[in-house]
Amino acid sequence: MLQIIGIGPGKIGQMTASALEALKESDIIVGYSKYVELIGDEIAGKETYTSAMTQEKNRCLKAIELAKEGRNVAVVSSGDAGVYGMAGLIYELAGDNPGFEIKVLPGITAAVSAAAVLGAPLMHDFAVISLSDLMTSWETIEKRIRAAAAADFVICIYNPRSRKRADYLKKACEYMLEYKPADTKCGWVKNIDRDGEEYGICTLDELGGLDADMFTTIIVGNSSTKVVGGKLVTPRGYDI
Amino acid sequence: MLQIIGIGPGKIGQMTASALEALKESDIIVGYSKYVELIGDEIAGKETYTSAMTQEKNRCLKAIELAKEGRNVAVVSSGDAGVYGMAGLIYELAGDNPGFEIKVLPGITAAVSAAAVLGAPLMHDFAVISLSDLMTSWETIEKRIRAAAAADFVICIYNPRSRKRADYLKKACEYMLEYKPADTKCGWVKNIDRDGEEYGICTLDELGGLDADMFTTIIVGNSSTKVVGGKLVTPRGYDI
Repeated sequence: MLQIIGIGPGKIGQMTASALEALKESDIIVGYSKYVELIGDEIAGKETYTSAMTQEKNRCLKAIELAKEGRNVAVVSSGDAGVYGMAGLIYELAGDNPGFEIKVLPGITAAVSAAAVLGAPLMHDFAVISLSDLMTSWETIEKRIRAAAAADFVICIYNPRSRKRADYLKKACEYMLEYKPADTKCGWVKNIDRDGEEYGICTLDELGGLDADMFTTIIVGNSSTKVVGGKLVTPRGYDI
Repeated sequence: MLQIIGIGPGKIGQMTASALEALKESDIIVGYSKYVELIGDEIAGKETYTSAMTQEKNRCLKAIELAKEGRNVAVVSSGDAGVYGMAGLIYELAGDNPGFEIKVLPGITAAVSAAAVLGAPLMHDFAVISLSDLMTSWETIEKRIRAAAAADFVICIYNPRSRKRADYLKKACEYMLEYKPADTKCGWVKNIDRDGEEYGICTLDELGGLDADMFTTIIVGNSSTKVVGGKLVTPRGYDI
């Protein structure tokens, strides 16, 4: 049995009870070392197999090998394992007849946890876009940013920047500014639910200058998004 | 204090520990009667204020009134309260100086819980679109469906059908078929994590004929989405 568990944004309280129970019942925990650290107290004494950020495929193969041996394996992903996480890669590598059960236990993905910190920006149709071009061409990313901006989606951006991609957020903002007004309300959250959590609200023309990192999630409002009581709020359309 | 709590798709095990704790510490629970029923065992003996599906504004006003009186109020929403839920309406109605603290406690939204049932279809950029035109013009909905389909997003559809909107899903599929191939892999889940949960995988040209209801969530794949071991999987782009 192989369970792919979304641990949520950070602290254990943001994990579901089902996910926590699956973790506790597993024999061995497989994951990126930082994520296994985050849940350390809950799995004290358990066997773990950890590796570095870039070793996703290696971890998935190891998890599959262990499940084939009959072990009860828990693979952990931050946020939700089904949103830019490990779930897809495991299904692909396990193939059509893995010989053991695979289950995804959902978690709170960054779009949702960032929205909760900022207020209620995702009350209407939204698009989730990653700016990482490690496995996606920048042309595809650009096309999606433009399409989402032109159709007035709220846009949630994952992986806005890394050392190699210092100007990607700035470029993404330039595309959005062709369709969305400069004073479109936006918000950002760093280290959601972890030590050093920070967040802020700004306008779209200010957003490109944000010192974002790989632990930052960004939400760009639609044409109705406003700031109420210091919170970012997208009205759904009720008469107020 | 007013806490807006996402209870997840159904059973209590899909709620976060923080959400459950907030529920237990609250004085009074406000919500749509069906959702309050779902969490009944956890809040046995607590005061509740429930009303019908269409009474959202009334419930929010009541919750705000109770919080102003100094009560510790928990408003419950299914899924996540920040995704087509109650959070935005509460912030709007509470205004700039409510005089009490408002907090959103995130939950597992249907896009994520449906994806987990189906496999791993949200591994790449996706758009979430509601087909409810109670508060959004059909023109806006149509524009967003077309934009998302043209830019090859995975598309997650909320509220695909109700009695008054019998042919909306069919129309949405017709728009998508102008941009996406007829054999695009899709999935649907009814009553996620509740009694009577059902799900299936089909192609985009079959999807329009689905007998969907208001408890159905639909995921339409992108050009890479495939079926592996009976699961719907969108590759992220790793070399397999």
